[in-house]
Amino acid sequence: MTNRTSLPANLKLGFLGAGQLARMSALQAFRFGIQVATFTDRKSDEPVQFMTPFSASGSFEDVDAMVEFAKECDVITLENEFINSEVLKQVQRKSGTPIYPSPESFALIENKLIEKQTFEAAGIPVTPYRLVKDAIDFKEFGTEFGWPYLLKSSKGGYDGYGNETVHNPTEATKAFEKLGGLEGHDILAEAFVDFTHELAVQVARNETGSVVYPCCETVQENHICVAVLSPAPVDQSVQEKAQELAVKAAEAIDGKGIFAFEFFLTKKGDVLLNESAPRPHNSGHYTIEGCIGSQFENHVRAVLSLPLASAQMTKPAAAMINLLGTHNRPAETDNMIESLATENGHLHVYGKVQSKIGRKMAHYTLLGDDVQSTHQKALEVTKTIEI
Amino acid sequence: MTNRTSLPANLKLGFLGAGQLARMSALQAFRFGIQVATFTDRKSDEPVQFMTPFSASGSFEDVDAMVEFAKECDVITLENEFINSEVLKQVQRKSGTPIYPSPESFALIENKLIEKQTFEAAGIPVTPYRLVKDAIDFKEFGTEFGWPYLLKSSKGGYDGYGNETVHNPTEATKAFEKLGGLEGHDILAEAFVDFTHELAVQVARNETGSVVYPCCETVQENHICVAVLSPAPVDQSVQEKAQELAVKAAEAIDGKGIFAFEFFLTKKGDVLLNESAPRPHNSGHYTIEGCIGSQFENHVRAVLSLPLASAQMTKPAAAMINLLGTHNRPAETDNMIESLATENGHLHVYGKVQSKIGRKMAHYTLLGDDVQSTHQKALEVTKTIEI
Repeated sequence: MTNRTSLPANLKLGFLGAGQLARMSALQAFRFGIQVATFTDRKSDEPVQFMTPFSASGSFEDVDAMVEFAKECDVITLENEFINSEVLKQVQRKSGTPIYPSPESFALIENKLIEKQTFEAAGIPVTPYRLVKDAIDFKEFGTEFGWPYLLKSSKGGYDGYGNETVHNPTEATKAFEKLGGLEGHDILAEAFVDFTHELAVQVARNETGSVVYPCCETVQENHICVAVLSPAPVDQSVQEKAQELAVKAAEAIDGKGIFAFEFFLTKKGDVLLNESAPRPHNSGHYTIEGCIGSQFENHVRAVLSLPLASAQMTKPAAAMINLLGTHNRPAETDNMIESLATENGHLHVYGKVQSKIGRKMAHYTLLGDDVQSTHQKALEVTKTIEI
Repeated sequence: MTNRTSLPANLKLGFLGAGQLARMSALQAFRFGIQVATFTDRKSDEPVQFMTPFSASGSFEDVDAMVEFAKECDVITLENEFINSEVLKQVQRKSGTPIYPSPESFALIENKLIEKQTFEAAGIPVTPYRLVKDAIDFKEFGTEFGWPYLLKSSKGGYDGYGNETVHNPTEATKAFEKLGGLEGHDILAEAFVDFTHELAVQVARNETGSVVYPCCETVQENHICVAVLSPAPVDQSVQEKAQELAVKAAEAIDGKGIFAFEFFLTKKGDVLLNESAPRPHNSGHYTIEGCIGSQFENHVRAVLSLPLASAQMTKPAAAMINLLGTHNRPAETDNMIESLATENGHLHVYGKVQSKIGRKMAHYTLLGDDVQSTHQKALEVTKTIEI
């Protein structure tokens, strides 16, 4: 496919998934006059379902249901990694509707083992890992790379789910079972990296070219991202290294769409690829106001074969605070006045109906002239928020 | 009502009208997690109807239908001036749902005669006008202020509709009849003003305060706005005068919402108020990217009693080009690649299904460092677009 040169009024972009990532992408699709449809495994009350008259529900394993949905759309895209690439291939073939990122790209990263092999083959340094099968493997890995280390299911993990930290062979045996190792899931051991910063870079890519976003820092607490600072407060040379590796990684999977790559900056100064996501990513939410073209705009542009927007920052610094559920209750954003009244502060609420403690409910981006002071100010004006 | 301190998930903002102005406001409502509903006099295919599962249709004179709609919403707002303020008062009273801007504010500007009297009473200079009833009046006005002059229906005019230019008493008599003067519509005579620039200023206002946008120039061809340049290429003192008068005008009607005020800058250097609109306005589309908080964001904030966002510009200059229909055909935006590929160029397509020559179908905003060169560049990169 080449450049799209026309946007007909009834062009319809279909999302498999209806959460906040699809929602923020949909807002950009609307800006181009594009219609939005969603297929999700929940009947109602999903964030995108409040934004379109075109909602379908069904199982993410039900090829026929997704084929029927895809036939009504011009292009299909994703907001998560929960649908098997083989299923996506069938949906694409039977419906005749293209899916981007392609099932072929997706197949290279849906499985953590294949993902690491793919990126290693492209010359991208990754965190030390090994496929483990039994107690002998657990012990060997610990002896070679030190305890504790991580056990990861090769499929389906996010935000720390599907990961277990193990301190000794007994814990490893338990975690292996918990992660589904006995049922045949591939389980990877991954060494703990002694890092100073966790970094992320988004790359948008399609047949018109590619665009790389600034290197940002993701600030994590208990494996959950609580804040993102851009540009990352690390040396320019480190930022550029991460950007270079991110572009290489997007090329390695021949990606068409928006991709996020997460890195460790080790104490020795090495930049190691940790995770990748074939979709908009929490680390890129700051780009809505922080960059000329956001990750969501470039998601839409990329999958529709349109020229990509600039990823240049609009101000010297951006800080994004994740607003995680503080209560288990019907959703409600309280005491947000100060955040709204702050110059260059931007509140985004995802439209979820139910709040749960720790659930990603909203985020807040503040733009400024300096990363550290902008981060401090953003924390201050959001600290009263209950959600 | 005081400051709103909570945004519950099921908060629903209802729009009377479903065109591009409601659409761009709705996109901002979604950002705050707010649900959007629309009531319009067309059954389907309206821009907002593609963006919500909550669409109702009916006549804008059918109070009961609008009451039923309003009962499902927390706040009602407008995107046009076509609904009578008496109707709005009844809808508000019977449904119990507040309407902003209030029917009382609306009553002060829906009728051009009352509008001019209101603003004059507040000390705001307006273009010379007179209520005219017959041939004697037509002649007298022409003798006093010169031919040609304008006849305007006191209700319902926009984009040059409802206005007639008359060069002599015979034309005046004909125009009076055409504009409904014989059926009892109030008809105003309005002098042609010898102006050098047409200017516009948006003001957002509610109980938390008010925010005034930069003074921009609206470039008109055949009474249709073809471009907006911000800041207006006129003296700083003139910009400030227009801003001052705009704030005064918003206060004069005790406005709660977003308002646009259009001015003439006369050859003598006077700033005269020409028109006002109690809603987002074409002259403020550039604010989506051009200002920290857009007119649409402040529309939503204002009517929901939230603190207002800053109207400061994000770059020194913005040029907005209206993309008017170039064909009578099913809508389709063609040859827009160059505009999309231009750094800091932002294309907005309204999702209308049918294109008509001259119809407002889309717009394009380019940000830059200098108004004149940004305008030139924006014209260049949009000139291939067919729509």
